[in-house]
Amino acid sequence: MRALEPRPARQDSLRERNLALVLKQIADAPEPVSRAEVAATTGLTKATVSALVDTLVSSGLVGELEPRLAKPTGRPATGLVIDGTRIGGLGVELNAGYLAACVVDLAGAVRHREVVRDDQRGQDPERTSAVLAALAAHAIAVVAADGLVTAGVAVAVPGLVDWPAGVLRFAPDLGWRDVDILGLLSRTAELSRVPVTVDSEANFAALGELHSVAAAPGDFLYVRGGTEVRAGIVVGRELFHGMRGWSGEIGHVTVDPDGPACRCGAWGCLERFAGLEAIVRASGLPVAATDPAVVDRIAEAASAGDARTDQALRTAGRALGIAGAGAINLLDLPEIVLGGSYAPLAAWTAPELQREVDRRVLSAAWSPVTVRPGTAGTDAAVLGAAGSVTRAIMRDPADWLRREVR
Amino acid sequence: MRALEPRPARQDSLRERNLALVLKQIADAPEPVSRAEVAATTGLTKATVSALVDTLVSSGLVGELEPRLAKPTGRPATGLVIDGTRIGGLGVELNAGYLAACVVDLAGAVRHREVVRDDQRGQDPERTSAVLAALAAHAIAVVAADGLVTAGVAVAVPGLVDWPAGVLRFAPDLGWRDVDILGLLSRTAELSRVPVTVDSEANFAALGELHSVAAAPGDFLYVRGGTEVRAGIVVGRELFHGMRGWSGEIGHVTVDPDGPACRCGAWGCLERFAGLEAIVRASGLPVAATDPAVVDRIAEAASAGDARTDQALRTAGRALGIAGAGAINLLDLPEIVLGGSYAPLAAWTAPELQREVDRRVLSAAWSPVTVRPGTAGTDAAVLGAAGSVTRAIMRDPADWLRREVR
Repeated sequence: MRALEPRPARQDSLRERNLALVLKQIADAPEPVSRAEVAATTGLTKATVSALVDTLVSSGLVGELEPRLAKPTGRPATGLVIDGTRIGGLGVELNAGYLAACVVDLAGAVRHREVVRDDQRGQDPERTSAVLAALAAHAIAVVAADGLVTAGVAVAVPGLVDWPAGVLRFAPDLGWRDVDILGLLSRTAELSRVPVTVDSEANFAALGELHSVAAAPGDFLYVRGGTEVRAGIVVGRELFHGMRGWSGEIGHVTVDPDGPACRCGAWGCLERFAGLEAIVRASGLPVAATDPAVVDRIAEAASAGDARTDQALRTAGRALGIAGAGAINLLDLPEIVLGGSYAPLAAWTAPELQREVDRRVLSAAWSPVTVRPGTAGTDAAVLGAAGSVTRAIMRDPADWLRREVR
Repeated sequence: MRALEPRPARQDSLRERNLALVLKQIADAPEPVSRAEVAATTGLTKATVSALVDTLVSSGLVGELEPRLAKPTGRPATGLVIDGTRIGGLGVELNAGYLAACVVDLAGAVRHREVVRDDQRGQDPERTSAVLAALAAHAIAVVAADGLVTAGVAVAVPGLVDWPAGVLRFAPDLGWRDVDILGLLSRTAELSRVPVTVDSEANFAALGELHSVAAAPGDFLYVRGGTEVRAGIVVGRELFHGMRGWSGEIGHVTVDPDGPACRCGAWGCLERFAGLEAIVRASGLPVAATDPAVVDRIAEAASAGDARTDQALRTAGRALGIAGAGAINLLDLPEIVLGGSYAPLAAWTAPELQREVDRRVLSAAWSPVTVRPGTAGTDAAVLGAAGSVTRAIMRDPADWLRREVR
């Protein structure tokens, strides 16, 4: 999201841009395209396209299908597709209740998935990181047996992330502060050899939503519920990170300035009304907010017509609407997507949310804001993390080529 | 702020990018630079730089100073500077209390400035637009007498702007809805011949802040006070517009969900606590919120130790801090700049604002948020509007060249 400084445009960067352009044409085409078709849509010469395609094929990004007849009378043309057989992106997720890993290939298919239910609250960061690293190394080995090279690892963590540094600054659920995730993970040999990035689970879950809905609009506020509440802001199909990656902390947006004290030190934060602890307390249900089945219990009670649970969910929805309306007033996004625990509870929270947004967003009269549950499910973050690795390669294939040469 | 689609990079666009690059080197240099120096810093060949500089000189963007001796023994080198004598950008501002015009030349100097005090509340949009157009036409004529060509016009208006369409959707202060500013202004011949853009005064004032402080950080939340309260979000030295240009409506962010009714139809909006009407009402001062001297009266009373005024300003500061903290939690911006009526009142509002932000921004413990009054004064919006025209030329000189040819 930083403004681009003009850089000298020489033949190298010209070629790099065209490489990305050709790759994008192949990826976006609804069916395999020929070199000639890519030349026609890009306006590049056939010779240029052919040379670029050869590079993309030899580096494992593009695959060639059996020649097909372009026209009944023409010469057979090779169909070009994104090669899903050679490069993968690995996402791992560290969450309070589980650890997960997922590999997505360049064509977008999920090639490996593993979830370990394991309560991480109050655990030693070194132990947790070691388990997570082992999960990652296992994933790398499993897909390697299928011939897939893992191009990078993206780590989703539940907290305030200093993403340029890879440090988890504050994770209330885990009880962690200033944990150098990047440093801890790179102790494992398999992870020291690939690029590793760390970001909040909400940011990656927002990308997961993009990944799982090809036609998803490119601008939305993704709000992920849980014991913590965090958002991913997507603008033009890209994450809005802010200066230091500390954007999206909607859970600590003030909903009522004189409301209950929050564990962050402030008062009346959204999390105090719409986090799982608040919902469980208000509903009076005999389940812990940290119980893996808590969302199911809440949904069951609400479905059964339990008045207190219904009221608790309405209160949460209203608070989400107040904070969400503030975000839309500031950012002018056309859609709010409910993820994490909010997706299965959307039937009870979304109507109140929608009502507050319609009331409180100044521009809603000219352009209504849509509210909908996310479609990527509980895998959203780990899927989005894995996809962030392949997205980066698709966006800048030249960077991948340079790494391959080294 | 939209993600860039890769486009075919051919020789034309290569040249266009290098043109912008060379222009930027000349603009950023602390003193006149030679062609050879530009070649050295950009990595382009001297021949390429010379050809590009010739184009920039002949199209009025770059000027050449008298040859100076590069080295005692070398050949004299021509010093290159941004040419402030040939191209200007015109900003006009429509505000509830005044109309203003300002011309800035390409070198950043203000070449013309005019303010007409005239209450626009409830005025007929056609009449106001005619006066504004006359003010603009006069400015174009005045600078034309100095040899300055007006390259474009940017119009700052107090309300919700559909900026791609140039329509002012909602301006509570003026009492206007759905006014086609672009259409009304282009009835005047002088304005039908140049590109005209329309945006909110807060967005342009944020750019004015960038313009007036060369060393201003490139990321901040600019909050402009008045009877309305609106923000400009600056990320990487660029405005964040949102999908339809409706970002920055911080005045309608909820501060207290059960607070007083707002004219927007919601309750407890920031404007109800920190707008001039709210401050005047709470202070009990015998002055109308629409009086041009209202801010002076408030500052005088607060300086004289009037307890009610002091309390009113503290309440406003606290509300600004609650809404501002929400914005920073979402956007991760390092600075809040107080503009409009808030700048002269900052002594009383900023401390409470800072306190709430320090308390409520989750990341403040790792990276404190700065709060400061703006430096561009009441001219910020019209200055930023004028500067937006010259900024656009500096960023894409090739576009200006194409227009010149036509």
